[in-house]
Amino acid sequence: MKKTSNRPKPVLLIALGGNALIRKGQTGTAGQQLENLKVPAKQIARLSRDYRIIITHGNGPQVGNLMLQQECCDTVERMPLEILVAQTQGQIGYMIESTLDEALMEMGINAQPLVSLISYVVIDEQDPSFQKPSKPIGPAFDREKALTLPYPVIETPKGFRRVVVSPKPVTIVEKREIKALIEKDFIVICCGGGGIPVVRKGRTFDGVDAVIDKDLASARLAEEVGVDLFVIATDVQGVALDFGKPTERFLQTISLEEISRHILKDHFSAGAMLPKVEAAMQFVSGGGAQAVITHIEDLEASVRGKAGTRFLH
Amino acid sequence: MKKTSNRPKPVLLIALGGNALIRKGQTGTAGQQLENLKVPAKQIARLSRDYRIIITHGNGPQVGNLMLQQECCDTVERMPLEILVAQTQGQIGYMIESTLDEALMEMGINAQPLVSLISYVVIDEQDPSFQKPSKPIGPAFDREKALTLPYPVIETPKGFRRVVVSPKPVTIVEKREIKALIEKDFIVICCGGGGIPVVRKGRTFDGVDAVIDKDLASARLAEEVGVDLFVIATDVQGVALDFGKPTERFLQTISLEEISRHILKDHFSAGAMLPKVEAAMQFVSGGGAQAVITHIEDLEASVRGKAGTRFLH
Repeated sequence: MKKTSNRPKPVLLIALGGNALIRKGQTGTAGQQLENLKVPAKQIARLSRDYRIIITHGNGPQVGNLMLQQECCDTVERMPLEILVAQTQGQIGYMIESTLDEALMEMGINAQPLVSLISYVVIDEQDPSFQKPSKPIGPAFDREKALTLPYPVIETPKGFRRVVVSPKPVTIVEKREIKALIEKDFIVICCGGGGIPVVRKGRTFDGVDAVIDKDLASARLAEEVGVDLFVIATDVQGVALDFGKPTERFLQTISLEEISRHILKDHFSAGAMLPKVEAAMQFVSGGGAQAVITHIEDLEASVRGKAGTRFLH
Repeated sequence: MKKTSNRPKPVLLIALGGNALIRKGQTGTAGQQLENLKVPAKQIARLSRDYRIIITHGNGPQVGNLMLQQECCDTVERMPLEILVAQTQGQIGYMIESTLDEALMEMGINAQPLVSLISYVVIDEQDPSFQKPSKPIGPAFDREKALTLPYPVIETPKGFRRVVVSPKPVTIVEKREIKALIEKDFIVICCGGGGIPVVRKGRTFDGVDAVIDKDLASARLAEEVGVDLFVIATDVQGVALDFGKPTERFLQTISLEEISRHILKDHFSAGAMLPKVEAAMQFVSGGGAQAVITHIEDLEASVRGKAGTRFLH
């Protein structure tokens, strides 16, 4: 299967949003999550002919569920949040890998190396987010129930959800390994849920009770590995001005300067589109060639330049 | 860091038993598990100078805990057993990788590539074990409590524990990737908890409600990758005849023929030493050079030929 062409295939980093696994109105059974993953998996299998590929993914509902489960149960030692993130990397990594494996086999591609890696990500213990939990995780509750919960919550479009600290990613610990694997044409699934958050103290890594935004971690990884195109796959067709209003209009391409102006005018919601826009901007402003935000159904089309909102320098 | 010697380093596969993570009398907090892992991690870091290394591990208490937690909680979708195995691969893979990373840094080894992989393992859906659950997982209960449990249990030396189906591993799905990584001198952590059990049906993988014995999966991986020495690290110094009796005697080296005779005389308990002995025999009888069963404190000494019970053809 090894290609012997002299020009290596360009590298894509695809960040899969929550709807890759659980769709609106679903409870998130294992069967639903595996079925939903076929949508990106088939497209990624086709793209693998022309691109080397890194896949990252979110874990909001999954890590929230593990938190709820361990809070229900008094007979078992509770694990800190970073261990729960690690557990979701195992779960979702397996789900993506096996679904993609099947999609590759369906295309007759039987020798594509494919791995899911556990990934941890260094954050700064002075990160200002420790003063202000901001990342919603787990299920949504109504106001009445939310008032009874023993942890901080915020109101989101879906209802009231638990919030946890969400520090900025500083560096992906496995970046060298991921780069080496991509050079060998492995498809690599990594940085699940934004990575397991750790602080580095001399020669030790200490886990941190936090969740890193998966789009920002993906942008950091895209920079550190040096990818050619960074794709954020989500549940809307791209970046819109006046989203949800009669004047709503989606953007096809946008420069860093233009998008900065739209941010100042509060066009993007803090809990949804804004972190994606910031992740795309971070990659392009750091020297990355292109980033695109697209609907997961249009993943392949967006890579081919036919869908999504493309960020240029 | 890359060695340029012409002779590649021999390959070790080290299977870490449950006591690498949780010791007798411990409840298994995250802190305990990370602390306990320092014992093998320091030895593995030293061994990495002379050997290429694959690490596998058990997950019995961890997967049992996740089962208990999800049974406590009515508001969250329950996941099938193979997904819980995947979750433990994330948890324990992270714990081993970060502890080993620290041990390597302490020795001044900063560029050793190191990854934890999600691994799934094909089993045969006709496996006779489906008729008879035999693998104990999770916590131990007294007889009175055991009678009230809604699932099958067996009596073990620790008390009554839940039993699940434990089919034989047929092949490790990621064997080619693991072999390629070892050839590049990566340390690879994989096949956690014996691997995520799947049956292959044409072009799909279906997860199975079962747990594969981690020593048997490790033996299969050792064969498939072609390792030079297969080490099973546990909580006793090696294989003993008349274990626990006044006539107890530990074996230093043993041939396949001799050990077969001892098995026929019921020297080894089905829930503890027997599967380890069978795994060591499987590797050696399949053409593997040597296998050793050793105490985790003696891991390095056993590789150097100074501890444990060594299986020879």
